[in-house]
Amino acid sequence: MTSLDPEALGARAYAMISELAAISAEPNRLVRLFLTPEHRRAADVVARWMHEAGLAVSEDALGTLRGRFGMSRRRLLIGSHLDSVIDAGKYDGPLGVIAGILAAEPFARAKAKLPFGIDVLAFGDEEGSRFPATMASSSACAGVFDQSTLSLADATGVTLASALRAYGKSPHDIAAAAYRPQDAAAYVEVHIEQGPVLESKGEPLGVVTGIVGQTRLLVTVNGEAGHAGTVPMHLRRDAYAGAAEMALALEKIVRAHRDDAMVGTVGRIEVKPGAVNIIPSQAVFTVDLRSLTDRTRKFAAERFEDEARRITTQRGLTYTVETFHEIATAECAPVLQDLLAQSISELGHNPIRLPSGAGHDAQVMAGLCPSAMLFVRCRGGISHNPAEFASVSDMGLAIAALIRFIERFQ
Amino acid sequence: MTSLDPEALGARAYAMISELAAISAEPNRLVRLFLTPEHRRAADVVARWMHEAGLAVSEDALGTLRGRFGMSRRRLLIGSHLDSVIDAGKYDGPLGVIAGILAAEPFARAKAKLPFGIDVLAFGDEEGSRFPATMASSSACAGVFDQSTLSLADATGVTLASALRAYGKSPHDIAAAAYRPQDAAAYVEVHIEQGPVLESKGEPLGVVTGIVGQTRLLVTVNGEAGHAGTVPMHLRRDAYAGAAEMALALEKIVRAHRDDAMVGTVGRIEVKPGAVNIIPSQAVFTVDLRSLTDRTRKFAAERFEDEARRITTQRGLTYTVETFHEIATAECAPVLQDLLAQSISELGHNPIRLPSGAGHDAQVMAGLCPSAMLFVRCRGGISHNPAEFASVSDMGLAIAALIRFIERFQ
Repeated sequence: MTSLDPEALGARAYAMISELAAISAEPNRLVRLFLTPEHRRAADVVARWMHEAGLAVSEDALGTLRGRFGMSRRRLLIGSHLDSVIDAGKYDGPLGVIAGILAAEPFARAKAKLPFGIDVLAFGDEEGSRFPATMASSSACAGVFDQSTLSLADATGVTLASALRAYGKSPHDIAAAAYRPQDAAAYVEVHIEQGPVLESKGEPLGVVTGIVGQTRLLVTVNGEAGHAGTVPMHLRRDAYAGAAEMALALEKIVRAHRDDAMVGTVGRIEVKPGAVNIIPSQAVFTVDLRSLTDRTRKFAAERFEDEARRITTQRGLTYTVETFHEIATAECAPVLQDLLAQSISELGHNPIRLPSGAGHDAQVMAGLCPSAMLFVRCRGGISHNPAEFASVSDMGLAIAALIRFIERFQ
Repeated sequence: MTSLDPEALGARAYAMISELAAISAEPNRLVRLFLTPEHRRAADVVARWMHEAGLAVSEDALGTLRGRFGMSRRRLLIGSHLDSVIDAGKYDGPLGVIAGILAAEPFARAKAKLPFGIDVLAFGDEEGSRFPATMASSSACAGVFDQSTLSLADATGVTLASALRAYGKSPHDIAAAAYRPQDAAAYVEVHIEQGPVLESKGEPLGVVTGIVGQTRLLVTVNGEAGHAGTVPMHLRRDAYAGAAEMALALEKIVRAHRDDAMVGTVGRIEVKPGAVNIIPSQAVFTVDLRSLTDRTRKFAAERFEDEARRITTQRGLTYTVETFHEIATAECAPVLQDLLAQSISELGHNPIRLPSGAGHDAQVMAGLCPSAMLFVRCRGGISHNPAEFASVSDMGLAIAALIRFIERFQ
């Protein structure tokens, strides 16, 4: 068995996380979007680390870095993502990639004889902050990449296809990025919890039982522009007033399903023409809807559309709803959960079992092979925010647990 | 008395309006904002027209063009504006400037001996589409320019002060733009109605009795960003949910004052950080509130702020409300109304008396001198929209009525 020094592993992880956190599109906040110059710089740094850890580095058609150890066809996949939300924290994503590298390193250095190879995967597109789609990178690895995603455009009108080409990739190579199911032994991902459960239990590590399903909608409301001074209220067809009413309707529907841990968010809203003295002719907004059961989430999405229909009819508006992302609730493989739990116990901690309210690449990878996640306590449950924080000790324990997991894995 | 051919005057006005409409920041829609290259090009064209009409041209510190006829200290001011809303119609503003030029022309050509001089004024900032303030140009002419306006910034962060300097102007010269009250005999403005009254009465021209007061607010709602998947609904401080609730509260308050012809509009809303999977930490929106009586409008603005307080308290949010524009209801001078009505009658039409639901430079100028407005029928009451339309005949009648008004004016 490999000897472990969790504090040293945590300190190395922290130094690496800090190096990645400095790679941002903006000087005063962390913004690292898919297929941008910042993504390129971060990937180059990670490729160097993989190489130094003794892994053979390659990059697929979606920009996913692979650090490979061992020649077996059968691969244990360990991954997470390098992209960030806008004004992000520094742990969400990078911790999992770095944990994979640092956990694979002792096996690579020792040229360990394992009945499987290890691939450390650094995905580029988990957050969906640039294009209106998420997890394109892991979808390619899982062999479920949706070709229609290629024509989606970012806020400046650049499509995913042309962004990929500018990144030096070809859409023709996407099929080759997929693992054959018989080669993918399992997928495991280390990630900060992004919620308050582990902190409230006083435990550093948790084993994820399942990942909530998600539905993301793009809602467009159309009305009629008009002079803000001369069109009487009863003759208006104000697209924004309709959109605001829909946002509150969503909130009400979601709150009615509290027992299913349902959450719903309008995170983006844009109004046209967008002048103080013009009645808005169009409002476009996103809905992010998540819950622990697929059935309840689908029911809530239908109720939201009923409300959208009622509100727009009453107001003389029209609307369209486009589902641009839909991912089912994913159960984590019980056998892998147990291996992770045993590894945590061996380090002297109580392995808390908990669901994940956030989406992760593991959700997509679960369609390819048995998958699991190891959660790391984060302060205040805060994430997607510069205040995001995980301690050096907790990160070190996670990497140590991942090493023990690799030793146990068959 | 000058001989009049309204159809010919209307045709000339239409040709000039079309020439100005081609001057836009965008190829497929009309966008002509204050102190932009488009403003400069439009002002250069108007200056040429003024010169050709026999007027002496100058330009003040806010970019207002003046076409002067006659040497009297006592001036009859005739004006309107060259700036537009975003995706504008072509009549709102330019018609009044062009009507002034074409009405002054016969007097200038004939070197008419009048007991007053005429100043045709082309203001640059009536709509407030660039900076969060309106009517800066006419405020300078009326001697009520607010120096704090200089530090307001447009959407790209450029302040009014620096935009003025880039336009070749100096804030030090603003005081010199003001008329002395004893020199300003009256102000008159021709404008499309921007509402449906004249059309519904089947009359081409109307005399404005008064202009509605306006209050414009910039509302900032602050909450806390968070992960859209992991923060339970009851722990959220979602700034956008609060802003949406405020927009609906505004609508409810305004509808309760229908008898006062009250209207209220949220025309701009921006949400930060603005990602599909992040709970908004901030929402900033504008409120445009208008009514026929100042007292009722102020009461409604107070009720809105009560609701903002209640909503933000309930949701754990904070808010600020900044009144960035406030203008009182302005009565049009009865003696000028009567002169306009007599001029319309003489042309064989019934002078409809009606209030203006839209704000106009005349509102500011009414603080300097007796002021009046002549409204021109517009199709469907549509304005601030590319479908805005006034007929050649109606525009010609308006210019003819303005010429008769000048003849009658003492």
